Parts: sequence; structure tokens; C-alpha cells
Amino acid sequence: MNIQIGERSRLFPRAVYRHADLQRLLHPERIAIVGASPRAGAFSERTLHNLSAFAGTIDLINARYERIGERLSYPSLHALPARPDCVVVALPFDLVEQAVAECVEVGAGGVIVYASGYAETGVAERKEMQARLADLVSSSPTRLLGPNCYGYYNFLNGANVAFGRTVAARFDPLQRPNLGLVSQSGALGMALAQAMERGVAISHMLTAGNSADVGIADLVAYLSEDPNCDSIGCVFEGTETPRQILEAADIARGAGKPLVVYKAGRSNAGSAAALSHTGSVAGDYAIWKAACEARGAVMVDDFEAIVEVSLFLAKAGRPKARGAIAVVTSGGAGVIAADKGEAWRVPMPQPTGETLAILKENLPEFAACRNPCDVTAQVLNDDTPLRLSAGALLHDQQYGVAVVPHPFADAIGEQRVKMWKELGENHDKIICYVWCSEWLEGPGVRQIEASRNLALFRSMDRCFAAIAAWHRREEVSRGSDASDRIAVPSYARLEAERLLKVATTSALTERESKEILVTYGVPVVAERLTTRLEEAVEAAEQFGFPVVLKLESPDILHKTEYGAVRIGLNDTGTVSQAFWELDALASKIPNARRNGVLVQKMARRGLEIMVGGRVDPELGPVVVVSLGGTLVELFSDSVTRAAPLTHAQALKMLHDLRAAKALKGFRDLPAADTARLADVICRVGEFLLDHKDQVVEVDINPLICSGDELVAVDALVVRRYS
Amino acid sequence: MNIQIGERSRLFPRAVYRHADLQRLLHPERIAIVGASPRAGAFSERTLHNLSAFAGTIDLINARYERIGERLSYPSLHALPARPDCVVVALPFDLVEQAVAECVEVGAGGVIVYASGYAETGVAERKEMQARLADLVSSSPTRLLGPNCYGYYNFLNGANVAFGRTVAARFDPLQRPNLGLVSQSGALGMALAQAMERGVAISHMLTAGNSADVGIADLVAYLSEDPNCDSIGCVFEGTETPRQILEAADIARGAGKPLVVYKAGRSNAGSAAALSHTGSVAGDYAIWKAACEARGAVMVDDFEAIVEVSLFLAKAGRPKARGAIAVVTSGGAGVIAADKGEAWRVPMPQPTGETLAILKENLPEFAACRNPCDVTAQVLNDDTPLRLSAGALLHDQQYGVAVVPHPFADAIGEQRVKMWKELGENHDKIICYVWCSEWLEGPGVRQIEASRNLALFRSMDRCFAAIAAWHRREEVSRGSDASDRIAVPSYARLEAERLLKVATTSALTERESKEILVTYGVPVVAERLTTRLEEAVEAAEQFGFPVVLKLESPDILHKTEYGAVRIGLNDTGTVSQAFWELDALASKIPNARRNGVLVQKMARRGLEIMVGGRVDPELGPVVVVSLGGTLVELFSDSVTRAAPLTHAQALKMLHDLRAAKALKGFRDLPAADTARLADVICRVGEFLLDHKDQVVEVDINPLICSGDELVAVDALVVRRYS
Repeated sequence: MNIQIGERSRLFPRAVYRHADLQRLLHPERIAIVGASPRAGAFSERTLHNLSAFAGTIDLINARYERIGERLSYPSLHALPARPDCVVVALPFDLVEQAVAECVEVGAGGVIVYASGYAETGVAERKEMQARLADLVSSSPTRLLGPNCYGYYNFLNGANVAFGRTVAARFDPLQRPNLGLVSQSGALGMALAQAMERGVAISHMLTAGNSADVGIADLVAYLSEDPNCDSIGCVFEGTETPRQILEAADIARGAGKPLVVYKAGRSNAGSAAALSHTGSVAGDYAIWKAACEARGAVMVDDFEAIVEVSLFLAKAGRPKARGAIAVVTSGGAGVIAADKGEAWRVPMPQPTGETLAILKENLPEFAACRNPCDVTAQVLNDDTPLRLSAGALLHDQQYGVAVVPHPFADAIGEQRVKMWKELGENHDKIICYVWCSEWLEGPGVRQIEASRNLALFRSMDRCFAAIAAWHRREEVSRGSDASDRIAVPSYARLEAERLLKVATTSALTERESKEILVTYGVPVVAERLTTRLEEAVEAAEQFGFPVVLKLESPDILHKTEYGAVRIGLNDTGTVSQAFWELDALASKIPNARRNGVLVQKMARRGLEIMVGGRVDPELGPVVVVSLGGTLVELFSDSVTRAAPLTHAQALKMLHDLRAAKALKGFRDLPAADTARLADVICRVGEFLLDHKDQVVEVDINPLICSGDELVAVDALVVRRYS
Repeated sequence: MNIQIGERSRLFPRAVYRHADLQRLLHPERIAIVGASPRAGAFSERTLHNLSAFAGTIDLINARYERIGERLSYPSLHALPARPDCVVVALPFDLVEQAVAECVEVGAGGVIVYASGYAETGVAERKEMQARLADLVSSSPTRLLGPNCYGYYNFLNGANVAFGRTVAARFDPLQRPNLGLVSQSGALGMALAQAMERGVAISHMLTAGNSADVGIADLVAYLSEDPNCDSIGCVFEGTETPRQILEAADIARGAGKPLVVYKAGRSNAGSAAALSHTGSVAGDYAIWKAACEARGAVMVDDFEAIVEVSLFLAKAGRPKARGAIAVVTSGGAGVIAADKGEAWRVPMPQPTGETLAILKENLPEFAACRNPCDVTAQVLNDDTPLRLSAGALLHDQQYGVAVVPHPFADAIGEQRVKMWKELGENHDKIICYVWCSEWLEGPGVRQIEASRNLALFRSMDRCFAAIAAWHRREEVSRGSDASDRIAVPSYARLEAERLLKVATTSALTERESKEILVTYGVPVVAERLTTRLEEAVEAAEQFGFPVVLKLESPDILHKTEYGAVRIGLNDTGTVSQAFWELDALASKIPNARRNGVLVQKMARRGLEIMVGGRVDPELGPVVVVSLGGTLVELFSDSVTRAAPLTHAQALKMLHDLRAAKALKGFRDLPAADTARLADVICRVGEFLLDHKDQVVEVDINPLICSGDELVAVDALVVRRYS
């Protein structure tokens, strides 16, 4: 089933629907099925089957029958004895419009349209039909789910309003946390919901389909405000209303609920057209990720991670410390844990002092009293040393989480799960149970799922990825203190705005770009634009040699490719020569306007950094950092974060670069002044935020860091087309 | 349990043991347990319990008892009525030596030592004890498994000779392929073996422990030659005998059996000390991977991938085509498949011609007749269109594999499995069933595992990773044709050998290094070494300006860091100035010998590539390629392959770079001549192979590619210390 969101919602943005708006649709007491049929396999018949545990009232509508099975069949919605909360329209698509209109007339709480053949076909006429459905409900309190929608499962009250098959397992009202699921695709939602069959507690699985009215953002907001849902897992491919997703993420964060998102569709079509380095380095998904993470959501790289990570976050709460301790009964599993800890940069500090003493006192002679802590296979016979050692490690303030690989599923393994559950409860810390056994649902799994202190992972890699995401989420949460931001004076803001307005082209020249950035306190190279040789020489002498000469033209964006840059000019003679060469070059490039020649002081040799940013009209501004130079964009080693940023967040961006070690001094280059570099990153973020309606891209490349000297030698600001 | 391999085996290398050497140890008819005990929980008692399905004879040895349970207890091995095949020594470690000696005396086929406290302690005395065990068996036909060894499971005859717990599921003699497992760690081996509980057919799970005698390489060789084993999965942390692993990989390949390896322990301690760029770019694991893959093994990045990938390869056979077709019932799953296909660079060509016509004829109006092919949810009601369409796609010669995401596990899903099984059989192609459902062992799983044409994956990412590895393995297999290698004349080989001998230092100078490489046909920059200014000027005029001057000293390895390079010298004046500056510089560097000044023609601007290599004394020579320049090693975008290489393999190395697109022309740089570049890669590989006993590292950085000009402007050869 291919899903296509309607275009309307982008044109007419609205705030997301809230819990009260959707409660009758998603938690109905009366459900009506329009197009009910006795035919086995019909969508309506299957829906009725899925509702077998529904405690409320079900009304069937079909004028062709008086009874269907044991139930009455009503001729129309108008004939119902009471107003329905949720109406399922199980009709071919040419009959849908009339049915939806009737739903509005009778004051239904909501309507689900199964039928496909609307906007997802790409056919104009069908898109129009979808738009008409949206129009029918737009000014009513009746909410519409679909069309091309699978329906939903509400496990709380058994309202499994869906045409496919449903989960056989029953909801356990005593088990928490409950996971709520949101999916655009019905099939992917069904797949996730089957986690119930292996002991995961799920409150809802809601699908959005074509989202003519209610979209995934609305469903996320609903779950955020539902007291029975503790954590939200969401999968979607794309949406016309990204801004609403961010709004929903804010609502989830406000409610203190984890939101875990897998976004499929990673192609970077949008960034292919980008003018700047930044644009080609930070693709569309990077912007999605930055914008969602800034609102506390966790973006996972694999569909299979959604359930594991959502439950982990719900169980883990906020980290008490950054360190992870691995407790293993096998050296091999310990090596894997250490590998993955390093790969995901999760700190695994060594036990010391009292903790170490307790380990040495209790563990066998040849146990490894370190991290990973190998308690040896001797614990097979007696759990006591393990219990005491693990207790000491969990008590240790440097550890916020224990990682426990579990190799064998059987009755003894189940006992071990019980012990860890108690340890986790006693020390109020989260324990990540890494299920190494290939018996994926073997004895012990249900106990782990049902425990509030044990999180189940079936991959060491995903476990450490989740711990890293948990830490990042905590940083976002701490970093949201606005007082830690750089204060930009209002005159700077106004001056930048003025300069943006007076520029004549969409892509500003290097000099214009730097003029704007300097108002925000970005250190730029000393330079002067001139059309006269005497002035060029005078400027060179004033700056001191060596200098650089560049041809300035609004029509030459990538000067190096035109040979329009002369570097390392050491005396007036070479400056004169370069000046005339550039002048001659300018006359050779057809239709290139020339503003003159730019004389710049040549920066000292240093590490080249790129600091840039993009503004997405829906997702807002992001800042991008990578090492500089032209080849860098080939290696996709960049960090993208939403603006604004605190100084600590900017430092973390630098730290998160794969090539971060270059900042500490590389080959013959001195260490970069990361504090000042972070300051520049923050200033670029503030600039983007302040001018997000005028600016599309910013690119400072390179920003040369040479010890305590930090200077932007080239820059590009691209204004929004208007 | 921490495992430490003994040092002996490295000092006294031997060929790996073969099937006949280990058959009595690993497939015994008579098993004796020394140190038998009636105490519940004792290692011997647990072993006996694990042997409950063993069809052969079990003898118990303990002089303190006459009977243990129902069985006789013999006073010693000498008292046994018949010679034992496999003896289990379940004694404390101070009694082990005597027992092993007796095993040799009575002519046992093999002995397993459970006891720990040997080399893994790091204590010299304990290492010595382990060496003595090895000595005891070394000249006998009795083979030793352990010490610090968990034992093994032989599911074929029920010889589960292990002190831990074992798998409850029974071996099914009718199911194929059978997976054989090899692990250093007992716990990780147990974890893998539990795949039997969910329907995977496993013939053996063998663990090696400290490997005083029999190691993982021997166990892999045993399984390679065992007719009941079809595919081998192996996990290990480290070994003192890497060469034997390669030998075992060759045996597996010779037997036509897939070998899938997860190597834990990825730290790059060894490469930290490397002198060259190559050394810091290609860490120790990269060499492992290259060496094993060159022998047809598949190296996986996650422990959890071992079982899935081993079975996939056994079922898939050799690829019939490179293309993958995804057949989905959900647009969402299709998007995920497309994302992962792109990420792993698996070609997903579009259906055309007759195939496309059949899709259009059979699929519903709004199905996506493309790749991924979305057959829509309508197939819920009627499988026929799906069957016809999938049949056409499997028939299509451009597709070698179908990827089928399966969202929901239930009876209907099981029917679908049956349909795909038939389709796979009819078209003799492999179908990757991607189990999206979170009901990991739900209905359908066992049918998939038991089918010879269906491979199960629980992650889309792992599925495409496995397909990519399958293609790579095929390339290795095709590339092993020696006639496609570059022929190096013997005089070149001899000349290189002579030049290596006459060099006075371990790290050769740039000039010496290039002199050697040029004998193998690597194009190098024109240059002359001189101590006289007149000669320098003469050389510059001969080469033509601009030129480069470099100070040559065997004591200055990284010239740029010393400022010992002057580039872009455009006339005799600047050459003279640079000459005297370098002369002055040389006198300022304490103890630096000076050979003179090297005058080089300055290469045209172009894309800088690094081509290098390392020789591991055990794993052999590897070639490494990455983009050049100093910052490049920060981004870990390099490709490492074992030497020698065919031209096609060298081209593939370039293609496998993340930054491969740079080779097609980047910014103002022209496209690189990849054919000539591949030629240089092959030549470096031949050089490393020919001189692998003399050479440690080679580094050509940069090799400048400027259109059809390709030239090495700097190089480093490091000889082996001797």
C-alpha cells in the first residue's frame, strides 16, 4: 500500500489535534460499520471479527440487509438509535464521499476511510477527491482517519478497528510501561503491534494512511496526552506537514514521554540542488534528525529498533550518570561490549576504591575485576558473588546503566533475570539485558519485558546505540536553558537585516556574506574591495604580507574553479601582477559583473573548519559543522544540530565529529581553540534563527583555526527567493 | 570466562588438523569422564546429563567410587575395558596433567580439559602449565581441546560433551542445510546453538577455549570436511595463529562451504605505532577482514548476524545475477528496502519488457509495477496476482535474489511462506524473507528455516548487508584467476630486492622508496638529488618550471612538519633561495644526516590518492586505497584488500570508497583515469607480495591524478626490522 499525503494540509497549516479532539474517534464507545457485509473476507466482516473483544456497542449499516449474522443492519447512519463515536466506512471509493458527509450530519466523533485510490495514485482527479473528503469534515468536530488507511488497534478497550488481522495476545492492565505505536503504513504498524505476542505491553497502534485530515503528528499528540501510554514509537516515510511533527514532539516532551522515530525515505533529492558545501554535507534526513532531536525525540536508524528503544527509554528514565558497566559471565561477550561501547562512544569507566575492593573480595581468583567485569562461569554454581559484585557496581555513582549479556535461555537463566530485576529495583538503575541467545523468545524474555528495570535488546550494537541516544537526549534536555545562549544585541540583528535587504543577488558575494556574519561577532579576515591598483597595494601594505587577491563578482560563486584567487602574494610586485591578471580574467568570463578585486590578509596556516547552516521552511534552522576544505563533503563526516545552540551543545557537536581528534592538534597543526570555535557555531545558529525567513543557507568555509587565531576567510550567505 | 591462547603455537607453527585427526575427539563412540562425581551440579555430573541422548558408550573414572548412579566407576583410564575416543577431564587443575598423560598412554582419540586457571591468568607459571599439557600430546595422536574449555555439542550423535547446559531441541536428520558453529568462548557458542530451539538445523557447536593444542582453525577445518555440515559460523576474539585461520578458510572454500566470521576485539593497538598513513588508516581488523575475505570468508560486523548470514549463504549458492527485487505488500516496507539497498549499494534495477507487462496485466490498478514492487494489500484476498507477478520477477534474468518483507505472523502468513517456498523452488532462486514482525518466533518462522530457498532475516539492514557480502564473495571467487594479474618481470623483482638491501635505514627516504616502486612500474615524478646549487638549477630548467625542492634526510620522515619542502618555485631565483633556505634548515635540525636537496618537477593540480599497503607477518600483504592528503586518515574512508589483486578487483576497491564519486571529477578537478589508477594498485600489490618478508609498509601519498597524468610525488617504504 503506497501512501500519499494530501497537499492541502501544507497549504493550510493548523495546530495539531489534541487528545480531546480525537478521543471519540480513537477510544469509542459506539462504533458503526458502514458497508457491513456478511461475506467472509470482506473488509467490514474482518473489522467486525477484530472487534470481538470490544466492550462497547457496534452498529452495522447496510440498507440491503435487515440482519447480518446475529446483528441488526440499519439502512443508514441517520437510522441509528444513538450517535456513533467512530464510523468505519468500508465502501468502494465512489460511495465514500456520501458516507463521510453523513458522518458529519449525524455528529460522529470520527470516521475511518479504508478505501484506497486517492492521492497515492498521483492522479489529479483522485487528489481532488481526497481534498473533498477533507473539506467535508474540516469545519466539523468529526475527525477523519484516511483515506487509504488501515485503521487502528486500541488494546485498552478492544477497539481494534482495522481491516487486517489483529493481535491474539490480550492487554494486561497491570503491566507498565505501555508502548503506543504510530505508523503511516498499516503493514508496518501491524508488524510492530505483534510485539504483544512476545510479552510487550502495548496500549495502541494507530495508523494514518493518506492523512487527509488526521495525520501522524496528531496521533503522536494523542498518545502523548493519553494516560495509558508511557512511550511512543513512530514510523513514517514522509509528510507534507513536518512542522506538525515537531509540534507533536514538543507535546510528547512536555508530557515527559519518550518519542522514538524511524523515518524511512533517506534520499537527499532536496539537498542535491544546494548551493553551499553545507547543503551537500547535510542532507534532508540530517535536518529531520536535528529538528526532531532538538525536541527530545530519538531518531533510530532501523525499523527493528523502534520497540526496543521506546521501551528502554520509558524504563530508564533520566540517566543518573554517563558511565556504563558491563557485567559478563564470558570474556567473549565482554570484548563485544567493549567494542560496541567504543564504537558508540559510551564511557565505560573502570571501577575503583570501595567498588573495586568489593569485587576483589567476592569474585573468584581469576575473575576480571574491571569494566567489562567478567564474573566467570563459576556463578553457574553460586549466584552470591555475582549478586554482591553487581550490587556494588550498581551502587557506584559513576555508572548509570549496567549492560548484561545473557547467553543461554533456560530455567537457570530465568532465575538470573529475577536476580537482576531485584538488583535493578534496589538500586533504581536500568539494566540492559542483551539477549545473545538465538532462542529469541526463550525462557526469560517475558519476565524481562514485564520488568520496569530491565530493558531487552537483541543486539549489543543496538543496546549501545540506545544508551548513546539516551545520553544525547539528556544533553538536549539540559541544554534547553536559554540563559546559556549567546546574547546578540538588537542593533546587530537590525544591521544584518538591513544588509540582507540591500544585497542584489540571491547568493551574496563572499564580502557581503562576511559583512553580515561579522555583525553577529563571527571573526573574519581583514579585507578591502577595490577597483584601483594603488588601493590594492596600499591595503596589502596595511594588512602586511602575504596577502590574497580575489576577483569579486556576484556571478562567480566558486572562485577557485575560475582561477579567480591568487594566494601567498609576498610583495607589491606580485600584488600588482595578480591584480592585472584578475582584471584580465574578469574580461574573459562572459556576462560576469565585476565589483572589483578583494585584497585579504592571508591567514596563518591552520586547521580548516566548515561552519554552516540551512533553514528548512518547515523544520527550521540547523547548524552544520565539519572539517573544511573542498574534499570534506565527500566523507559525510558532519554534525547537524537545530539552532539555537548553547555553548555546551556547540562543543558537543565538535566532539561528535568522527574526525574530532584533528581538533586536538594534527600533524604539524596546533590544537584548535574549541571554546572560540563553539562560540562561532553558536553565533551562526543565532543568525540563522533570527533571519530564518530571509536566509536559506550559510557557509563559512574555511574557518581557519591556527592556535588562538580563528578567522573566516571565505563565506557564503544565500537568501530565500521571494 | 576469559580465554588466553598459548604462545607456543605461534612459535612452532603447524598445518591445521584435518577431519581424520579430530574425528575420534569430536565424533566419539566411547566417551570417558575422568573425575566423575555423583554430586549434583558437578561439571562431570552435568556432562553426563548432557550426554543423555548419546548412543555410544560412556565410561566413568573415579577411584573413590565403585558405582556412580547406575554406572560402574573405574579406578583409572588404564582399567577401562576399551580404548576411549574422547576423554573428558573434569578435575581441578592440579590433577589435570597426570590425567592428560594417561590419555596419551591409553591411546585416547582426544581429551577435553575443562579446568581454567592456565594461560588466561597471565601468570608465567600457569602459562608454563598450559605449555606442558600441549607437550604431553604433541607427538601423540591424542588431541587436546582446552584447557579453560567449555567442550562441544555434536548434535549428530548426541555427544554433547560440555559442562554447561545444552539445547533441548533434537537434531532433525531430514533438514538441510546444517549449520556448524565454532567459538572460542563457551558462552557465545551456547548462545548461537540455541538457534536450534527456533528451528535452525545445527550439526555441531565446537568451542576451543585456550587452544593449547586444537584451536578454532582446526575446528573450522574439521567442519569443512564433515559431510553433515553445510555452512560454518565462527566467533573469536583473537588468536596467536592467524595463519591457521587463513588455512582453515582455504579448506572451507575448497569444500565449497560458506564460512562466516565475527571477530570481536576491534582495537587498533597494533596500528597505533605505524609509520605510514596507510598504517593509521588500515587498522588491524581491516587486515583480518581483507585476508579472510580474500579466502572467501564473510566477515560480519555483529555477533547476531552469524546464524542468519551463514544460513543465507548456504541456501543462496552462487548469485545468478547482481540485481535484487523487493516485493512488498506495503509501501512503507518498500521504502525501507530501497533505503537499505542504496546504503549497501545493492543494485535494484527496474523491471522492463515482458516482466513489466506481466506485472501490469496482473496487479491491481494502483499497484507499483516497479522495484520495489508494491503488490498492494489486495493480495490479502487473492494470492493469484502476487503469484504470477512474483513468478515473472523471479524468472527475470536481471534478478538474483528477491527481498520479501513479511509484516504479520499468523496462519495467512504461513500460507504466504508456502507460496514463496514454491516460487523459489520453481525458479531456483533465493528469497530473503525479512521478518518485520516483532513476534520474532511467530507462525511461519520454522517453515522458513526449514526451507532450502528461503533465508530468514530479522532486519532489513542485515539482509542487504548479507546480499552485499554475497556479491563480494562472488567477486573474490571470480577474481582468483591468476591470469588476470599483472606480470612483473623477474629483473624488476631482483632490482627491487637489491635496492631494499642497499638501503641503510628501516624507513627509506622518499627518493629511495620511489626508486624501488618505479621498478614495479609505478609512475613517479621526475626528480634529482643534489648537494650543489648549480645542479639544482640545471635540473629545474631541465624539468621545466614550476619545481619543488625538498630536503632529503633519512632522519626526517615527515618533511612538511619540518618545513623541509618548498613548492611552486617558478624561476631560477626562487630555486636558489629555496636551496639555501633548506641548507640552513638542515643545519638547524640536530643530528639529521643530509643526503642533499631533491629537485622535483611539480605535478599538475589533480585529485590526490593514497595507495599503500601493509604486510602482517601472519596474515600477509594487504593493499590500502583512500583519497590522499594529510586529513584523509581522519575520516576512515579507505578500502583494504589482500594482495595480489586483479585489475577488476582493484577497480572495485576504488568503487567501494565512500568518496568514490570524487574519481568521476570533483569541483574543478577532472575525472581520474581509474584504469591506470587500478594498474598502480595492482603493481603495489605485486610488490608487497614479492617482498613480503622484507617490507612492512608502503605508502604512496599523494599519487596525483590529473586527467591522463598520474604520478607519485611522495612515497615511503618501510623495511622489516631484522
